[in-house]
Amino acid sequence: MRKTSKNLRETITNGDLARIMAAHNPLSAMLVEEAGFDGIWASGFELSAANGLPDVSLVSMTEHLSTMRAMAERTSLPIVADVDTGYGNAINILHTIEQYEGAGAAAVVIEDKTFPKVTSLIAGGRQELLRIEEFQGKIEAAVHARKDPDFLIIARDEALIAGLGEEVALERAGKYAEAGADMILIHSKQKTPDQIESFINAWNGPVPIVIVPTAYPQMTEARAIGLKKVKMLIYGNHAIRASVTAMQKVFAQIISDGGIQHVNAEIVPVAEIFRLQKMDEVKANEERFLR
Amino acid sequence: MRKTSKNLRETITNGDLARIMAAHNPLSAMLVEEAGFDGIWASGFELSAANGLPDVSLVSMTEHLSTMRAMAERTSLPIVADVDTGYGNAINILHTIEQYEGAGAAAVVIEDKTFPKVTSLIAGGRQELLRIEEFQGKIEAAVHARKDPDFLIIARDEALIAGLGEEVALERAGKYAEAGADMILIHSKQKTPDQIESFINAWNGPVPIVIVPTAYPQMTEARAIGLKKVKMLIYGNHAIRASVTAMQKVFAQIISDGGIQHVNAEIVPVAEIFRLQKMDEVKANEERFLR
Amino acid sequence: MRKTSKNLRETITNGDLARIMAAHNPLSAMLVEEAGFDGIWASGFELSAANGLPDVSLVSMTEHLSTMRAMAERTSLPIVADVDTGYGNAINILHTIEQYEGAGAAAVVIEDKTFPKVTSLIAGGRQELLRIEEFQGKIEAAVHARKDPDFLIIARDEALIAGLGEEVALERAGKYAEAGADMILIHSKQKTPDQIESFINAWNGPVPIVIVPTAYPQMTEARAIGLKKVKMLIYGNHAIRASVTAMQKVFAQIISDGGIQHVNAEIVPVAEIFRLQKMDEVKANEERFLR
Amino acid sequence: MRKTSKNLRETITNGDLARIMAAHNPLSAMLVEEAGFDGIWASGFELSAANGLPDVSLVSMTEHLSTMRAMAERTSLPIVADVDTGYGNAINILHTIEQYEGAGAAAVVIEDKTFPKVTSLIAGGRQELLRIEEFQGKIEAAVHARKDPDFLIIARDEALIAGLGEEVALERAGKYAEAGADMILIHSKQKTPDQIESFINAWNGPVPIVIVPTAYPQMTEARAIGLKKVKMLIYGNHAIRASVTAMQKVFAQIISDGGIQHVNAEIVPVAEIFRLQKMDEVKANEERFLR
Repeated sequence: MRKTSKNLRETITNGDLARIMAAHNPLSAMLVEEAGFDGIWASGFELSAANGLPDVSLVSMTEHLSTMRAMAERTSLPIVADVDTGYGNAINILHTIEQYEGAGAAAVVIEDKTFPKVTSLIAGGRQELLRIEEFQGKIEAAVHARKDPDFLIIARDEALIAGLGEEVALERAGKYAEAGADMILIHSKQKTPDQIESFINAWNGPVPIVIVPTAYPQMTEARAIGLKKVKMLIYGNHAIRASVTAMQKVFAQIISDGGIQHVNAEIVPVAEIFRLQKMDEVKANEERFLR
Repeated sequence: MRKTSKNLRETITNGDLARIMAAHNPLSAMLVEEAGFDGIWASGFELSAANGLPDVSLVSMTEHLSTMRAMAERTSLPIVADVDTGYGNAINILHTIEQYEGAGAAAVVIEDKTFPKVTSLIAGGRQELLRIEEFQGKIEAAVHARKDPDFLIIARDEALIAGLGEEVALERAGKYAEAGADMILIHSKQKTPDQIESFINAWNGPVPIVIVPTAYPQMTEARAIGLKKVKMLIYGNHAIRASVTAMQKVFAQIISDGGIQHVNAEIVPVAEIFRLQKMDEVKANEERFLR
Repeated sequence: MRKTSKNLRETITNGDLARIMAAHNPLSAMLVEEAGFDGIWASGFELSAANGLPDVSLVSMTEHLSTMRAMAERTSLPIVADVDTGYGNAINILHTIEQYEGAGAAAVVIEDKTFPKVTSLIAGGRQELLRIEEFQGKIEAAVHARKDPDFLIIARDEALIAGLGEEVALERAGKYAEAGADMILIHSKQKTPDQIESFINAWNGPVPIVIVPTAYPQMTEARAIGLKKVKMLIYGNHAIRASVTAMQKVFAQIISDGGIQHVNAEIVPVAEIFRLQKMDEVKANEERFLR
Repeated sequence: MRKTSKNLRETITNGDLARIMAAHNPLSAMLVEEAGFDGIWASGFELSAANGLPDVSLVSMTEHLSTMRAMAERTSLPIVADVDTGYGNAINILHTIEQYEGAGAAAVVIEDKTFPKVTSLIAGGRQELLRIEEFQGKIEAAVHARKDPDFLIIARDEALIAGLGEEVALERAGKYAEAGADMILIHSKQKTPDQIESFINAWNGPVPIVIVPTAYPQMTEARAIGLKKVKMLIYGNHAIRASVTAMQKVFAQIISDGGIQHVNAEIVPVAEIFRLQKMDEVKANEERFLR
């Protein structure tokens, strides 16, 4: 059994910053590993998008879990699983944690919205939060359900997204840490890092911070490290955005060219896909085991 | 219920050429539709690759079928389903056709290799073909099992891939048409169109031809149309190759930049993903139905 | 495509009573059909139990839907799908209806509890209901999402289960019918039919009633017909209870006998399973299509 | 992570006889455990039947594996997974073993038929066997792929089923043991134990024997133990046969009675299903974690 939670726990305890990149299928997870990131973000947003669905709790736990399990089987990096609101209440969380830990995740992020959720970055989306006590119950259930003490329970604090202000965000973060969360993911959709930096500077809780700088790309890794308290940085949707960009471009060119005569040289050859699929290993195994 | 087989049947009967682009998930299928192709190739190779697995019959029918069904739900283009060898013998084919037709496919491609298969374009791969009579039985079973007479049964002739030469390829193609195949997909991994063109020129069977010009990109749509007998051209793996190319590039740059400050402008914004996910529709429905 | 909604609509419009029996897998659904019932209850409770899980929203829509689809593929009876609370809010309902109608259901039952639910018959379970307006929005979304006007949207009124009394139950039922529900399922866990009969006698809304007499077995079909307004009677969990009873008994006897020498004659022979699996059809198809 | 392979290895090494009962879903697996058997047979035949499908390789590995994984999550007994022919050739076996071991199986049974298979007990079914060398390659691949040395690779020898006689059966069994099989499952569909007993008496290979006495119920556990070499006895289909028997009877009675007034007392109460679902645990967790 794959055991990566220990590495991740150590990285966020002793390391500078765990850099986690989103993936939406096992192949993108493998590319995350090859690129040199420290972990894989099994993103609900990316998986919804890959399925052509809005990120409003339409993708079931079954689908997300099985994608995550397949990612775990094809990679050796820690996986941080985005379980949205945990697929229900504290009772569901017990089941969710059992399932994700069993499938090889090293961490889960549980957010404090009500179910069903709306994706955080949408303009004007309704963003209702759970009562603090109810979310504490969910965090406590998650902590109770994990078997491996290195498995990280990350509480995602959506107070800034919901427009409730820094004070509420800090209060919630503190309460979630009290309930046993190993890290606080503080999310913001402001176009600059100000809001997040202000929160982080004000944070004096006992656990480190996770950020997702999609909306404020000026927040580099160096700048995050400089804030001292940030130990994990999630790149939340760049795999799917890169893929869409490339498919749109390549498809348009093929339509325009009436063929693949030009795009062929602009994209990786089929042999590169074979390499990623480990066809060499298949051939060696055919030599060895096929009679 | 989505009914696209009629359109596809008409295109290959009266049209010039149906241009079919590979997809590996519903999102890529939606991009195929937006780009203006005539159909979607629910590719076994792309799905294997997306799952990080070699294309040697490791992805189950359950997985391929459920991906295909989701593609059908999110698009209105005809889907040509790549069912490899049909997941077994003629008995399995009966089940396979029932399932794929029920899931909204407009056509299936069944290949004449033995199960489990090895991907066709690999150098030095073993490529064993079924006996002709056995494959005829599979085609007959497929024809028998379809409920919609417009649903296309396409026989994939791998004789050239297996190195058996044009004569065998022609004989097999003829026998497959006799058994009821609506089209013959003739595959080649030569670097130029010569082998394919020679086959097509020699073909005088009663059904049109499908080609997959991955290995010989000089075969443009115009050139295929010029051959008269080609009515479908499948772009077999450009969606996944484009995606890999882009993710490798973007991931490397983020690692190198230590942040997303530069890639952010090179890839589509999150808003473009929202558009594809139809978030506007979600918001309108929230207005209307949430109280 | 299987089209059974029309039959079911006619039965509840012109017939005496549609008798619907629970199933938890395609085989039990086939036995429901052979026994002569009028429809299949794709029960969430039975499926949860078959999966060894409590009925508290742990089984995902993916799992329930795929079981229901397989039932639809193996039977010709109308299927009434138990979708619990609809897997989320009104937005999720739009998706849920699209999926279940596409998978071949003839009707869905949506209940007015909050998500995640607790099974209705448990003693002392928390039973919170949605606000009426919110549930009306869900019913309206369901009506809006169906493509086939014969597809039945059944609103399950849990006011009696929640201990809110007949008046509230009637008010809710009326509001749900206003919102477009085709039938009202009124549920009770009292040990006698009094509560239900009182409700039904007091009901003068425009749509017929569905009952589930698990807790009050004195409510026979004849008695239900006598109440005039009941047009559907669901036997909610007898398939799984029968199966458990038999497996416990047979397993105990094998353990006690140290072998199958005695149980063998008490259970159906393997040949009966072959009959249900249609092995004769397989053999005929092998004759015809295997070469 | 559940680790039951060690127990099973010890039972077949030092114990008298491991008694393994078939299951087709997690609930039946739980009942197997409660009844006191030594392990669970994750039966392909039972799962096919439960899905209403003939046992001819229509149920995919995805479906069987996910059922088996759920069984492993709800029980603590060793699970012997019936993987039919291993879902392909030796290359597929590598993947199959990785998946089943990862999902918590303690053993797999791989049979020496060609793919797709026909169920063994059917009269007049075609029963083609793989070449010995090819099947040895599959066993070697399985042994190579397992990570846990206690995980049992059981080779299922179908020579008697295929009518090839005892000598061939013994030769094959010997070759499979040479290739690394931990046990030999010898199967017979004769109505008496003679054929099996003759084989077992003639067997002097280095590994113990598994039998499946469905067709010859006179073979009790005591008689099997008396043969010395049998260390595992699989009851292959009694869970599904018991379930079918009971559902047919209960359904017929409800139809005949026009209600549940009489069957209600003949089957376990709903409370027994709640007990199996561990509703008490849910309630305790609700007390503890719901706020």
